[in-house]
Amino acid sequence: MPTLVLLRHGQSVWNAKNLFTGWVDVPLSEQGEQEALRGGKLLADEGLLPDVVHTSLLRRAIATANIALDAADRHWIPVTRDWRLNERHYGALQGKDKKQTLEEFGEEQFMLWRRSYDTPPPPIEKGSEFSQDADPRYEGVDAPLTECLADVVARFLPYWESRVLPDLRAGKVVMLAAHGNSLRALVKYLDGISDTDIAGLNIPTGIPLVYELDEGFVPTTPGGRYLDPDAAEEAIAGVAAQGR
Amino acid sequence: MPTLVLLRHGQSVWNAKNLFTGWVDVPLSEQGEQEALRGGKLLADEGLLPDVVHTSLLRRAIATANIALDAADRHWIPVTRDWRLNERHYGALQGKDKKQTLEEFGEEQFMLWRRSYDTPPPPIEKGSEFSQDADPRYEGVDAPLTECLADVVARFLPYWESRVLPDLRAGKVVMLAAHGNSLRALVKYLDGISDTDIAGLNIPTGIPLVYELDEGFVPTTPGGRYLDPDAAEEAIAGVAAQGR
Repeated sequence: MPTLVLLRHGQSVWNAKNLFTGWVDVPLSEQGEQEALRGGKLLADEGLLPDVVHTSLLRRAIATANIALDAADRHWIPVTRDWRLNERHYGALQGKDKKQTLEEFGEEQFMLWRRSYDTPPPPIEKGSEFSQDADPRYEGVDAPLTECLADVVARFLPYWESRVLPDLRAGKVVMLAAHGNSLRALVKYLDGISDTDIAGLNIPTGIPLVYELDEGFVPTTPGGRYLDPDAAEEAIAGVAAQGR
Repeated sequence: MPTLVLLRHGQSVWNAKNLFTGWVDVPLSEQGEQEALRGGKLLADEGLLPDVVHTSLLRRAIATANIALDAADRHWIPVTRDWRLNERHYGALQGKDKKQTLEEFGEEQFMLWRRSYDTPPPPIEKGSEFSQDADPRYEGVDAPLTECLADVVARFLPYWESRVLPDLRAGKVVMLAAHGNSLRALVKYLDGISDTDIAGLNIPTGIPLVYELDEGFVPTTPGGRYLDPDAAEEAIAGVAAQGR
């Protein structure tokens, strides 16, 4: 049965500071490293061993995969990295404090930017401190200047179809080490969640979310299964409260 | 100009204990992590930024690449892992103390096993503590039970030709994160070192060794260039004294 393991990176130093991060390439915090380690131990305990891993181009997802796979003794599996797994680009909000942004723009605008399906934040200014336009990793990529979740779905699905599905078809256990919004984009697609309902879906950090898929690559259990359901429930409540 | 960066992994916990390691998958020591970090900083200082990296299937080389590339802000480059970059298989010596082995078998036999080109140690017993025959990463691989350096050359060169040369031909800066003997095998080939003279060649850990290659993939400077030549010289003397 095709098996997919989703792993959202652990806490980054900017998560800890409550800043919008997006494509800014900040490292994991010490807590984030511990979360990744726990994720890997959960995989090992479950005997759920990835055969291949796909990561974004951002070090918080890359390090999460490295730490978790090492803990599960799967550090040696093939890895592919792609910008299409990146976090949603947060546009001009990148580098801004979430609480300050909430206060400055008000609850309604804040929640539109954070959770609406199709309202992107204002685009980031080229050449500004937290823009990526001189970053060599995006050479040849038509990199966005801001994204809403609909944009993430649109840029992630071609990768899913061309790079992830072939691995699943080959019978491999596939792990994706990625971000809150690139994983929400995938879960929306897999579980057929509406543009409205996806606003209420949060994915906790560092807890493997496992999907078993039927021959049409539809989840046999909608919503998948967290390897540590109690910790997941607690963490989901924490994510929802961010910015408060 | 095609550019190749060779990086031998930093000290492992078994290097620190003076044990023969071979294919046993031991982690870096704290010193080894520091060496990898220094290696990455040397690359960054030199502005010598790898476009792709190839590693062995062993965590001491994988972690060295991860740490060094992160320090050089190149953690996001494509990576390929293959057993053909593994350390020489040390056969029945794996897990044994180098000093004890020297005392037990005498200088001549010890040096034959360590440095002769074509005398492998006795093969490891299948199912014994330090054998790899149940290791899933070697599934489908005709894994050796012992190797001399000639065996390493024979299994590494097909990888060089089929996987590394195409990257170099494509104009990429290629980094290989590997081991004392897989890198000695390559250097022997690149520099045309004789079966006898290769015995005297040691490669220090954690110091990038850079080869610029002409259009025939022959080094423009025989022996390449260490990014920190003084540290390299000192470390080479240290490697040569191992087991004493």
